[in-house]
Amino acid sequence: MTNVQTTQADELQIKGQKAKQAAAMMGVLPTSAKDGALKAISAGLLHNTPYLLDANRADLDAGRAAGLSESLLDRLMLDEARIRAIADALIDLTRLADPVGQVLEEWERPNGLKLSTVRVPLGVVGIIYEARPNVTVDAAALCLKTGNAVILRGSSSAIRSNMALVSVIREAVATAGLPEDAVQLVEDTSRETASRLFKMNDVLDVLIPRGSANLIRTVVDNATVPVIETGAGNCHVYIDESADKEMAIRIAVNAKTQRPSVCNAAEKILIHQNWPHTAELVAALQWEGVVVHGDEAVIDLADGVLVASEEDWAMEYLDLEAAIRIVSSTEEAITHINTYGTRHSEAIVTSSLQEAKKFQMGVDAAAVYHNASTRFTDGFEFGFGAELGISTQKLHARGPMGLPALTSVKTLISGNGQCK
Amino acid sequence: MTNVQTTQADELQIKGQKAKQAAAMMGVLPTSAKDGALKAISAGLLHNTPYLLDANRADLDAGRAAGLSESLLDRLMLDEARIRAIADALIDLTRLADPVGQVLEEWERPNGLKLSTVRVPLGVVGIIYEARPNVTVDAAALCLKTGNAVILRGSSSAIRSNMALVSVIREAVATAGLPEDAVQLVEDTSRETASRLFKMNDVLDVLIPRGSANLIRTVVDNATVPVIETGAGNCHVYIDESADKEMAIRIAVNAKTQRPSVCNAAEKILIHQNWPHTAELVAALQWEGVVVHGDEAVIDLADGVLVASEEDWAMEYLDLEAAIRIVSSTEEAITHINTYGTRHSEAIVTSSLQEAKKFQMGVDAAAVYHNASTRFTDGFEFGFGAELGISTQKLHARGPMGLPALTSVKTLISGNGQCK
Repeated sequence: MTNVQTTQADELQIKGQKAKQAAAMMGVLPTSAKDGALKAISAGLLHNTPYLLDANRADLDAGRAAGLSESLLDRLMLDEARIRAIADALIDLTRLADPVGQVLEEWERPNGLKLSTVRVPLGVVGIIYEARPNVTVDAAALCLKTGNAVILRGSSSAIRSNMALVSVIREAVATAGLPEDAVQLVEDTSRETASRLFKMNDVLDVLIPRGSANLIRTVVDNATVPVIETGAGNCHVYIDESADKEMAIRIAVNAKTQRPSVCNAAEKILIHQNWPHTAELVAALQWEGVVVHGDEAVIDLADGVLVASEEDWAMEYLDLEAAIRIVSSTEEAITHINTYGTRHSEAIVTSSLQEAKKFQMGVDAAAVYHNASTRFTDGFEFGFGAELGISTQKLHARGPMGLPALTSVKTLISGNGQCK
Repeated sequence: MTNVQTTQADELQIKGQKAKQAAAMMGVLPTSAKDGALKAISAGLLHNTPYLLDANRADLDAGRAAGLSESLLDRLMLDEARIRAIADALIDLTRLADPVGQVLEEWERPNGLKLSTVRVPLGVVGIIYEARPNVTVDAAALCLKTGNAVILRGSSSAIRSNMALVSVIREAVATAGLPEDAVQLVEDTSRETASRLFKMNDVLDVLIPRGSANLIRTVVDNATVPVIETGAGNCHVYIDESADKEMAIRIAVNAKTQRPSVCNAAEKILIHQNWPHTAELVAALQWEGVVVHGDEAVIDLADGVLVASEEDWAMEYLDLEAAIRIVSSTEEAITHINTYGTRHSEAIVTSSLQEAKKFQMGVDAAAVYHNASTRFTDGFEFGFGAELGISTQKLHARGPMGLPALTSVKTLISGNGQCK
């Protein structure tokens, strides 16, 4: 199915065709060849650090002139330490197992057909992202390791940095004997080109947005190619009546305050009506600077609590702000979470294994914790050694995505002349 | 994310909310409860056969009056034998293993966190399909077995049959003690309602189109919810130079002619230039009534061969028609297939294990055969015991989809107070 609307050769079409050709070559490469390319990229980045910093400085200057905020400029910024960290991460990636070629199942049918399912690359992966230039290298490296070709589309504010990074990557890939077109950057950062990328069904096997909720929504609403949605986390900590006081307060405070701006930070705390330490929990949160909203029961129990509105329960604050609700049972907590949650990370603190099991079964989320902070939902903490993002959809991959999320399967069937 | 555009309560919104509530209940049911519902549906269909046939007769009468073709009327038609077959299939389904609750992986982290990945239902599944009323029961049953709620949207030509079937199903589901809203039919068969279904991201975890290429394209092009694409099969049989004459002809003829209208039927035959039996293969195909197109080399070698145009190589004939091309190597066959194929089912006939391996590695398709007919690509032939369709995409599920394709995963994490 061809959704590309122009017949005239243009950047996307040309790069799309090159990506398909590169993907065909990448898919059959041995692990050692792919790891060789990752090492070459790592060395290339270190060797070309001054060139990369020059390009990045031009982006930063343009960004300052355009009035970008300090936090955006910080995301955009590269320095020697950051480039070294990126280069080191590439070496770490060479140490991970290659999922491609892994035999997942083998079986035989009564008619003598022998079947096996093996992991194969997805093919051509599209990544659309915002200002962070480290994503350029990270996404390219994960795709190379898994034998995919990648088409990168970063933001206009990082275009000089991205062009410099991709030219270093492509040169290293070619030096390592791999097809350089396995990594390509869309240099036209217009919205029109992005919209066409969303519909390149003849080229892209998947499109993965990495960035703000707005970016992700735009991709989900407009893409006709398969998308992996990574997104919001309105995460809850539920404190059951039997929860240990010290553990519950520690987990709730950690989940809320350790890094409030990230998707696996807790936004809401639900407390069983018989747990007697609500006032102390509120005080502990306030001590850490958290603005606490609550329902009437919480307001009765603790000081300085603002009224939580209906909107609060669905909101992702991403800040030192939380809403607390008193519930009468684990079932009520589950219903609240399944109504307002975003299916990301949810936690129960309880001494009862039965309540823990009920919660873990009943809550619909990628990661459901018992007696631990929601902050552990990420590919490194899960032990995957790499992370492509945290999927909040249920199809293909759910939760932190490691290398296997960038693969598909193929069934190989061997016979001796079987016909139907 | 809410894409439903009206705030007024209407059929889709109401059914969507009911489906979500039902899904929450379905997800935690034991296998025995779900199998009990399947048995109750089976009995209900048999018991209500006269009622179902009456409703179907009204659809058939309306279809005849509207000038539907005989083949469409045949697809629409129910009779006692077909209802019995549908009822029997439900009993077969109770014998299959329930994927929900299956522990896929268990591991522990250095910080003491214990993780496990378990299969869970997808949640709410949308199925959009055409005239066959058997899909109504089949899709509902597969979703029930896997603990999902389903929203069915069939065609207007089968609406009376579908309403009757769904009322029988819902009654049986309720009798078995399950939430009847786990199975709902969209009774408004307008295009506008279908278009809204495509964008019900707040309700549907996946939308699966089952039917014609047109239907599938419409869904893929318009849906913002995750879609599993099931689709076209421009399948090839490649006959390598070392292929056994009798086996190659038998496989090619079987793959082409055993049931030419289905997606796993072969459409193209590629022949190595050194294989000396092209004329006999062409004659065997023609003997079976196949109209044979070919490139110049084939026209030189065999009688009665039409010129194959560039369009032929990409076309899915779905009929007694084939195109044949002579190639100089397995590599050329792979390149041809990866250029023109639809990534469905591809076969090599060869005595060389090396060429077979090269072909199976290099061809990008859901199922790649060595010395067997492409016609085996289906869930029953693969031994899955059930089939929801054959996915031609690479995300989530590829090839024949059995029960696990209707599930997602959830990671359960247990700790003793770990914080980050």
